[in-house]
Amino acid sequence: MLNARSVLVTGSNRGIGLGLIQQLLGQNNRPEWIFATCRDPEGPRAQELKNLAAKHPEVKLIPLDVTDLSSIQAAAAKVAEHLQGTGLNLLINNAAIARPRAMESETPEDMSEVYKNNVIGPMMVSQAFLPLLRKASQESPQKGMSCSKAAIVNMSSDGGSITNVYLWDIRAPCINYRCSKAALNMLTRCQSLGFADDKILCIALHPGWVQTNMGTSAAPLTVDASVKAILNTLGHLSEKDNGTFVNWEGTALPW
Amino acid sequence: MLNARSVLVTGSNRGIGLGLIQQLLGQNNRPEWIFATCRDPEGPRAQELKNLAAKHPEVKLIPLDVTDLSSIQAAAAKVAEHLQGTGLNLLINNAAIARPRAMESETPEDMSEVYKNNVIGPMMVSQAFLPLLRKASQESPQKGMSCSKAAIVNMSSDGGSITNVYLWDIRAPCINYRCSKAALNMLTRCQSLGFADDKILCIALHPGWVQTNMGTSAAPLTVDASVKAILNTLGHLSEKDNGTFVNWEGTALPW
Repeated sequence: MLNARSVLVTGSNRGIGLGLIQQLLGQNNRPEWIFATCRDPEGPRAQELKNLAAKHPEVKLIPLDVTDLSSIQAAAAKVAEHLQGTGLNLLINNAAIARPRAMESETPEDMSEVYKNNVIGPMMVSQAFLPLLRKASQESPQKGMSCSKAAIVNMSSDGGSITNVYLWDIRAPCINYRCSKAALNMLTRCQSLGFADDKILCIALHPGWVQTNMGTSAAPLTVDASVKAILNTLGHLSEKDNGTFVNWEGTALPW
Repeated sequence: MLNARSVLVTGSNRGIGLGLIQQLLGQNNRPEWIFATCRDPEGPRAQELKNLAAKHPEVKLIPLDVTDLSSIQAAAAKVAEHLQGTGLNLLINNAAIARPRAMESETPEDMSEVYKNNVIGPMMVSQAFLPLLRKASQESPQKGMSCSKAAIVNMSSDGGSITNVYLWDIRAPCINYRCSKAALNMLTRCQSLGFADDKILCIALHPGWVQTNMGTSAAPLTVDASVKAILNTLGHLSEKDNGTFVNWEGTALPW
């Protein structure tokens, strides 16, 4: 069962990110600190998150634009301040974008922009929060790896599974998104090796096809169902799962 | 055996690209048109290629910067002019860069720049030459797919194999390069599905660890040995290989 003292979620103002904040608050052993970050916490698209933070002092609303290094560094400094010398247990790189496009009309601008958000963002965020993740790992009495001790969870997608591409509708392959998620899977795998000595668990997670703005209402899974399964899965992941690609239910996916 | 009337190679002024041009010229059934492209054919780093073109009228030297859409489109127009209404059989997306960096000091700038060269470049080049590849496919009396008929070969790397990351020296993972090649593999797979009806064969190819500027002199394979094996492999690829990832000798690699 997930038992992290501190959790940070990027892109937490809507969709799966918002669902994670909501359900983390509903847990019996809720975290002491829930850092809910998004680009513009004062903007109209963050109202629901803002209401949640007003009711729950555990929720700290922090601006973080994953495409802006100085914004990321400022967020890391604020989080460190809140944590008062303790570490960050769980970093969930959830913020991501997609630009629907047919393959032949794909543009360099969309390719760049999506890569910046979905790959370079999680990389920079992980770098900035690495000292806090290391601190959490060192503080923890637990021996093996876990999401309760110290972990980076990168929200990927089975749309980034090169093996499974044939399962998708090829009329709308959305290369910008697929390429970014394949690259994010590679980043996750490298992080899992690079941070193994620090005992930081690194996972690529496919949340399912979910009823969000990105997933559309045609999706079979509600945000609630996806997030409930994700939190359950995060509670069960251990050292043997380091560097793997799993779905919301914990089932392994091929690269 | 490879029997293409026209071949285009990007990044052909040195390393594997230059080796491909040299050995294509050495074949018994040499192509009628060998389009050797690089960023700056008039620059000091293209002297060897320039000498080769001066001796062999089949070799057409064409400027092509894979990060610049207008340069790509100008190159495609020039190639079409040379081909006088016939198609392009084989497009080899060979140009690529890497920025050696330890994981923790990886930068957003290097990530972006390498992705632009190694993924967005091949995507834009493929888009620009698609009409010529389609023409070649339609012209060909051959039924199945092949590199002699119509093909896109994306020079990838086993450094882009997410499965095989553990085989590499983790002290120098070079995230920018690895992520770009994993994304290129995804692009290749999508192209293989998207262009299947056009009977354009799409392959991701790992040339081996080769003695080039990028591979360094520590590499076990000479350019000649790698290129010889690659051309042999290209001659053998068929419909069943569409959308796969193979090494210089034609052996399948995992994503």
